[in-house]
Amino acid sequence: MKRIREYGIIIGNLAPGPLNKITDVEGVLVGHATKNTRDHKTGVTVIMPCQDNPFLRKLVAAAYVHNGFGKSQGLIQVEELGTLETPIALTNTLNIGKVHDALVDLMLERCRKEGAEITSINPVVGECNDSVLNKICDRVVGLEEVRAALEDATSDFEEGAAGAGCGTVCYGLKGGIGSSSRRFQIGEETYTLGAMVQSNFGSTENLMVGGLAVGKEIARLTEPTALDRGSVMTIIATDLPVSDRQLKRILKRAGVGLSRTGSYMGHGSGDIMIGFTTANRIPEQAEKELLSVRILKESALETAFMAAAEATEEAVLNSLAMAKTTTGHKGNVVHSLTDLWLSKERI
Amino acid sequence: MKRIREYGIIIGNLAPGPLNKITDVEGVLVGHATKNTRDHKTGVTVIMPCQDNPFLRKLVAAAYVHNGFGKSQGLIQVEELGTLETPIALTNTLNIGKVHDALVDLMLERCRKEGAEITSINPVVGECNDSVLNKICDRVVGLEEVRAALEDATSDFEEGAAGAGCGTVCYGLKGGIGSSSRRFQIGEETYTLGAMVQSNFGSTENLMVGGLAVGKEIARLTEPTALDRGSVMTIIATDLPVSDRQLKRILKRAGVGLSRTGSYMGHGSGDIMIGFTTANRIPEQAEKELLSVRILKESALETAFMAAAEATEEAVLNSLAMAKTTTGHKGNVVHSLTDLWLSKERI
Amino acid sequence: MKRIREYGIIIGNLAPGPLNKITDVEGVLVGHATKNTRDHKTGVTVIMPCQDNPFLRKLVAAAYVHNGFGKSQGLIQVEELGTLETPIALTNTLNIGKVHDALVDLMLERCRKEGAEITSINPVVGECNDSVLNKICDRVVGLEEVRAALEDATSDFEEGAAGAGCGTVCYGLKGGIGSSSRRFQIGEETYTLGAMVQSNFGSTENLMVGGLAVGKEIARLTEPTALDRGSVMTIIATDLPVSDRQLKRILKRAGVGLSRTGSYMGHGSGDIMIGFTTANRIPEQAEKELLSVRILKESALETAFMAAAEATEEAVLNSLAMAKTTTGHKGNVVHSLTDLWLSKERI
Amino acid sequence: MKRIREYGIIIGNLAPGPLNKITDVEGVLVGHATKNTRDHKTGVTVIMPCQDNPFLRKLVAAAYVHNGFGKSQGLIQVEELGTLETPIALTNTLNIGKVHDALVDLMLERCRKEGAEITSINPVVGECNDSVLNKICDRVVGLEEVRAALEDATSDFEEGAAGAGCGTVCYGLKGGIGSSSRRFQIGEETYTLGAMVQSNFGSTENLMVGGLAVGKEIARLTEPTALDRGSVMTIIATDLPVSDRQLKRILKRAGVGLSRTGSYMGHGSGDIMIGFTTANRIPEQAEKELLSVRILKESALETAFMAAAEATEEAVLNSLAMAKTTTGHKGNVVHSLTDLWLSKERI
Repeated sequence: MKRIREYGIIIGNLAPGPLNKITDVEGVLVGHATKNTRDHKTGVTVIMPCQDNPFLRKLVAAAYVHNGFGKSQGLIQVEELGTLETPIALTNTLNIGKVHDALVDLMLERCRKEGAEITSINPVVGECNDSVLNKICDRVVGLEEVRAALEDATSDFEEGAAGAGCGTVCYGLKGGIGSSSRRFQIGEETYTLGAMVQSNFGSTENLMVGGLAVGKEIARLTEPTALDRGSVMTIIATDLPVSDRQLKRILKRAGVGLSRTGSYMGHGSGDIMIGFTTANRIPEQAEKELLSVRILKESALETAFMAAAEATEEAVLNSLAMAKTTTGHKGNVVHSLTDLWLSKERI
Repeated sequence: MKRIREYGIIIGNLAPGPLNKITDVEGVLVGHATKNTRDHKTGVTVIMPCQDNPFLRKLVAAAYVHNGFGKSQGLIQVEELGTLETPIALTNTLNIGKVHDALVDLMLERCRKEGAEITSINPVVGECNDSVLNKICDRVVGLEEVRAALEDATSDFEEGAAGAGCGTVCYGLKGGIGSSSRRFQIGEETYTLGAMVQSNFGSTENLMVGGLAVGKEIARLTEPTALDRGSVMTIIATDLPVSDRQLKRILKRAGVGLSRTGSYMGHGSGDIMIGFTTANRIPEQAEKELLSVRILKESALETAFMAAAEATEEAVLNSLAMAKTTTGHKGNVVHSLTDLWLSKERI
Repeated sequence: MKRIREYGIIIGNLAPGPLNKITDVEGVLVGHATKNTRDHKTGVTVIMPCQDNPFLRKLVAAAYVHNGFGKSQGLIQVEELGTLETPIALTNTLNIGKVHDALVDLMLERCRKEGAEITSINPVVGECNDSVLNKICDRVVGLEEVRAALEDATSDFEEGAAGAGCGTVCYGLKGGIGSSSRRFQIGEETYTLGAMVQSNFGSTENLMVGGLAVGKEIARLTEPTALDRGSVMTIIATDLPVSDRQLKRILKRAGVGLSRTGSYMGHGSGDIMIGFTTANRIPEQAEKELLSVRILKESALETAFMAAAEATEEAVLNSLAMAKTTTGHKGNVVHSLTDLWLSKERI
Repeated sequence: MKRIREYGIIIGNLAPGPLNKITDVEGVLVGHATKNTRDHKTGVTVIMPCQDNPFLRKLVAAAYVHNGFGKSQGLIQVEELGTLETPIALTNTLNIGKVHDALVDLMLERCRKEGAEITSINPVVGECNDSVLNKICDRVVGLEEVRAALEDATSDFEEGAAGAGCGTVCYGLKGGIGSSSRRFQIGEETYTLGAMVQSNFGSTENLMVGGLAVGKEIARLTEPTALDRGSVMTIIATDLPVSDRQLKRILKRAGVGLSRTGSYMGHGSGDIMIGFTTANRIPEQAEKELLSVRILKESALETAFMAAAEATEEAVLNSLAMAKTTTGHKGNVVHSLTDLWLSKERI
């Protein structure tokens, strides 16, 4: 499989980082655990925002609910306190309880090892409904899978039908995990912003690739799958020194990227953006009452806005380009963009 | 134990319903499962909004985050769609994953029995941190307890240290589950509004009972317990024909009731209000595109606002009056309002 | 001048109404008063949501702040009560105080004539910053202009550099007022949704027309004008029987339309959406406590979402296509899309 | 007239600053212009957040809409950017357009004098409806009054029926402008938080003074005035080094203070909180891309929350204690708390 850029399709104006993934932001790792059986096409994907303990040194964070027909967990506290204190886990809609509980378990274990007895933790868990390909009611993702995904975490992680993307469907095609990044200068300094999506939204005829409305053409080649109740989770990581309010402004621009791939934010699609910055960590137990932080001036956010829009658009296209045609639960077949269009057009 | 009204302390101007509980709203039932051992003081309390299946005929609902330092689940979708589709469950902070998963299980089971195969469900779960009295890390509440609580559901449910209130602490005293209701006329019709709280907030010296600032006096009689990270969950049920927007306006007035017992919405207290009305049910599968609904005119909400404030204040006081002095985890003792003040003053 | 559709550029899948303007929604009229002198390129545009008095029979309404770097007035009450009670006026940034005051004056006058003495009114006023072409500090729009615009109100109103669009700049080109509509069936009934924009946002190089990224090409032909602090006001009118919550969901999809013309919601662009429906009017003085209303079921909103996205995209393109190259204040020249691209490509 | 504390009524636990007014926050001044004629009981009150130009060095700010049945202006941008760039003006409901325009005028003038040509400004204007005592439709407050109020600005400003409080009615008694402050230590440093209210809300029978429910008693002594559509504006100033998010959390606690005087946030009462901090000023033209700021750690906000609740409660009581019985428009008489209760009880 090739990423979208390898087909000569360049999204936006800014240059990507070396991996062109969210993990170009230093310290960020992504891991998968995939349940890929005849009946089950699902899994869990974790985004580790840092390699030390995020509970003990929290990350400035924000969340934005673009369309709230979804079950994501942990966002209320992220909004109130502007911080993230666990890895972010993505899974299927009916598995978020189990995955939430697994994150509680593993964070308690980690804190205990590091000498901190904690009695409260706010796991952040997102979800898409993968029931077209996955026998979702079985809820096959739990503690073991979350632990495996955390252990799998790496900078050069797999895209497409991996982890929480194993069974998702995007624009009627096989979607999944996709990522992209942008690296840019503000003043004297170089910053990185990365996006990762779990793509599970859109109807085929609306698909746009690099500004081309290819959806109608592709729709003629494929039988529509059973209508699902979609979703798209967008995770934004950055090292920009921004406040939680500024980060939320950046998150909103991810919607621009989704729109440009053809989304009109369908009713049944829970569109959630979650973001964090690795700058300005917030200690759980601050010795002093005052923290010194560096904050970007507001007008300097323009480039970050563009980066969020571009990286999200490219992340969605990578989730499509890197996913293979998949046969799942009940024999449902979902074709890949590669098979239906990319490979034909551009060998 | 006696309820606060039995001590001659009357809150507000409106009359309560026959039980003076949230279950005065027709169709609403409340059930508990309590884990009361030496180490464990916790449990789950469920509010059943109706006796038929809430997924198939949803209830108009709203949520309001008064202070978001909390982990409640399911509120994003309630806000987006204005509907509730499951019972509401309350438990301890670290158990919400398991309780969420149990509700998924039981709702799938119920729907299947009723002939509906569903692949998506939005459980609403709230929590308080009961770690002063409960060995919270053990997470002892799961499927079995949620099932038991649903089976236990009744209109004349227990208050005080029951279910999710088994281990909570309120104003440094033993808190727990408390409830109250108001019945009033708007135009020609009689409506009911009920409140139920899981109380786990406040410092002793700020406590006010019926407008009397008794906290300072009580604070001299009791040793402060270890500081906990509190919360208060407020559930409002009504049969008023209101829209989700109107319901949210009503929920905000629950904060008035909390304030009048002495809360100043402390930083660490996750204060969440969740409400539903049994009027204007919304079918999951509507045959027609248009629903006919009846909506109260805006200015008629005044009485409902007063009812929400009064019922919430009285519910908190009932949670205190009905809870007994409790010794929990690590030998921590939390005294009751009855022992320290109510019984002395008013035999 | 020709509208974008006359160049063969068709946006989206749904058919427009007969005028392809917001005024295709029955009862909606739009009027302009334009101040077009050497120094002043500005004005006021009013959207009359109904022909009877909107204060006495309010319209269900909503607002959505896409990017809040703007000064729009009246949205707080629209959000709280879900109703609109005046015409909506659009003008320049520094003139909203005067225009607000004019609407107060004219609504008091109108109510008095109709026998209602009122002491409170919530004018809704939006704005864009037209200071590239307009000597904005002079604030030349007031009572006289608002009165003239209301008198000018008609269904076949002018687009381009008229009224509040006289001095605005969009994608570095002459913007202004633009409109479009969609007419579609849900169940047995036909509904209309219309959009109107005051366009004043975007940089030339990002412009997309009908999915074509023509901005870079056009950017080479024009000198960039002085950076302005833009904005875009989007007004959505419909006759769909929707609640204020549902209407807000529809408004959010206008952002999809903006994104597809090339916006990435720049920092300095106040992007505000305001919408109303002419269904389910709410009387100021209701005789009865209960209103009977008809509400569309949630899943039927899909088509409305698509309509809002498409009509907004086309409205922006019409604002560009219908505006002429303009020389304003300080001799600043802003070229039209017609001169730079539309006329050349497609004679 | 005496302030509430002079009657021996002490609110809360924290000590006030030297003036016990919002102006205890260094740099903050308050000025009034009062229109007190037979028909007109109204005016404008301005809060100057600093003595240098707030546009050129903005203040970190936040707004919280407790009940949005109100017409306040400028809050959208405050929420988006987290900054305040003008004085805050309070006036009557129908005069906010004129007062907005006056602030535009005076800020443009001031900036010009200081060498800055600006074309955009975001005045923040709040309002209450004083139509019981004031012939509000005449809209008698304009540029002249705003200029006079700014010139009048002082630290030891008048309370009661002054400026924007000239005609307001609170708990059926004469309300107006009231203020209070708290000074407290966090870590090694001393901070100040002040509140100022324009009080125009509540029904007599609900009034509570210092925890005593005196309203019912007072209600027997006074004839209810014509029902008005109230409001209460609460301004919070502080020198705490907090972010806009933290400031919003503080603002929410002002509602606790309002509740404790007897408010249940009536439907018709627009309850708006606006706050700013004088710490961490934000330059309009920053030379560097990065600002260094100091931020209080989250848990240290507890004292600030208590201060906001206490100062707001005391500010409302001061607005009542310092206002005299007033005869206004149409001969309407509104009695003072002093005449009806304070003077009788406590000579």
